[in-house]
Amino acid sequence: MRAVVALGGNALLKRGEPMTADRQRANVRLAAPALADLARSHELVLAHGNGPQVGLLALQAAAYTEVEPYPLDLLGAQTQGMIGYLLEQELGNLLDADQPLATLLTMIEVDPDDPAFQNPKKFVGPVYTQAEADKLAGEKPWAFKQDGEYWRRVVPSPEPVRIFEILSIKGLLNHGVLVICAGGGGVPVMFDPQSEHTLVGVEAVIDKDLASELLATNVDADLLVLATDVDAVYRGWGTPQQARIDRITVNELRELDFAAGSMGPKVEAAARFVEATGKRAAIGALDHIGAIVDGTSGTHVVVG
Amino acid sequence: MRAVVALGGNALLKRGEPMTADRQRANVRLAAPALADLARSHELVLAHGNGPQVGLLALQAAAYTEVEPYPLDLLGAQTQGMIGYLLEQELGNLLDADQPLATLLTMIEVDPDDPAFQNPKKFVGPVYTQAEADKLAGEKPWAFKQDGEYWRRVVPSPEPVRIFEILSIKGLLNHGVLVICAGGGGVPVMFDPQSEHTLVGVEAVIDKDLASELLATNVDADLLVLATDVDAVYRGWGTPQQARIDRITVNELRELDFAAGSMGPKVEAAARFVEATGKRAAIGALDHIGAIVDGTSGTHVVVG
Repeated sequence: MRAVVALGGNALLKRGEPMTADRQRANVRLAAPALADLARSHELVLAHGNGPQVGLLALQAAAYTEVEPYPLDLLGAQTQGMIGYLLEQELGNLLDADQPLATLLTMIEVDPDDPAFQNPKKFVGPVYTQAEADKLAGEKPWAFKQDGEYWRRVVPSPEPVRIFEILSIKGLLNHGVLVICAGGGGVPVMFDPQSEHTLVGVEAVIDKDLASELLATNVDADLLVLATDVDAVYRGWGTPQQARIDRITVNELRELDFAAGSMGPKVEAAARFVEATGKRAAIGALDHIGAIVDGTSGTHVVVG
Repeated sequence: MRAVVALGGNALLKRGEPMTADRQRANVRLAAPALADLARSHELVLAHGNGPQVGLLALQAAAYTEVEPYPLDLLGAQTQGMIGYLLEQELGNLLDADQPLATLLTMIEVDPDDPAFQNPKKFVGPVYTQAEADKLAGEKPWAFKQDGEYWRRVVPSPEPVRIFEILSIKGLLNHGVLVICAGGGGVPVMFDPQSEHTLVGVEAVIDKDLASELLATNVDADLLVLATDVDAVYRGWGTPQQARIDRITVNELRELDFAAGSMGPKVEAAARFVEATGKRAAIGALDHIGAIVDGTSGTHVVVG
């Protein structure tokens, strides 16, 4: 069986933790045994978030004023290398020496006409006072929105359209390689509206769960797992009536409402995968990844 | 014909240039047409340096004091992602849409008993006053050496022993993929001396030319090109008798002396490749890459 597992950014750096290299490595090491178990009996593709990592790079860049901060596509590419390295090394340490692993830089096309470009709302980088944000907005082509007490830069989160490295990803998978790719939702790129055949980087962030769904559909995965830090999808989350969903048809799922920021994209990704392929998608806790794949933990979305 | 081309760090950021993202992209764009030409008629593997890029990341990390700077293996992995992305995108823009490209995170094994670990001498990161360097040396497990007027951190530069992703690299090449890998000489890793089967990152820098030689030998390349900003190897460089070398046998080359920092590693890499394979290696200017491959520019090292 071929499974695509999307690791939440929290699997690597949890909210409120110090953003150190040691902490990231320790978190990857915690997640690795269950993923390695999975890789021993299944074809595995790993995707992952990169929010906290891009955030740290943005903070460091802002602190060093000699060189203009790098655009988000370059920062995303950097985090793909770094996080891929940590995952590849720690998983490799648990697997047989003859299990090949590969981390692929992944560019994902977005559409310049995506409505998300008219409404940037994904927070990235440091927090600012309103005065600082206003000043930066005058100096750079950046948009800002209030985030609690502070202001932060916001960027568009367009839909993933196409994975450029898909043939390489599939080729490696078909040869038994454990592939790590589409990190941070892929590096967003688009064909330059001024020059049809020229790909350019985009200051945007593709949702990691939606990118993983496209990846899973493209590699003909049998299962898409959206791994996070909650054990399942709940009806009425946070209300006295909250109820865990073990199994749900995609049509039933489409009837429910979920928060845009947290569970929303996972539910959308799961629904799309099931609709596109007729296969199973699951949402659950990374700690229970083995049981999720076996169907005994998490929320399972099925056709119907 | 299968060629491995190692791009000097200067191909991306030249000494003294501002280290901006725009400048890097412009430099990659300058180099791309000749490399794309090559890729149209040959199987191409690209390796590249990362010195200035790691330097910038180290400067940014030093400026943001809230989080301890990340170790060199993680910084190296970050630059592999970023530089690979720039190369992959700009080359892809020049090549036919059906030419696949892939950038692979590359870990390269070094030997914990490598004598380089007793004598760290590769400069990395910011310059410090002697007082600053002394203070840092008391706080971190870092070594410092004088570099001109200032002091800088030095790390070991051990020999590359093994490329972990070699099967994936060869597999992709055999399927016609243009592969970008072994960036910055690869991320240096070693088997933990305390635990034979556990790979750990190493605070070191593998020479990019020597790593490219290992790569070229491993992928059965017909040609290794070490591309730099001088047009050839010279006898008596900087003396009134300096003389360009067009063609030289590896035995003759072994008789000559070259500066350790600049031409030395290129000459050593070329010699090793010719000795290991009996094939041709060339050293020359990136601007003339096509003519180098054709044998009409650069210094060619041959058996004998």
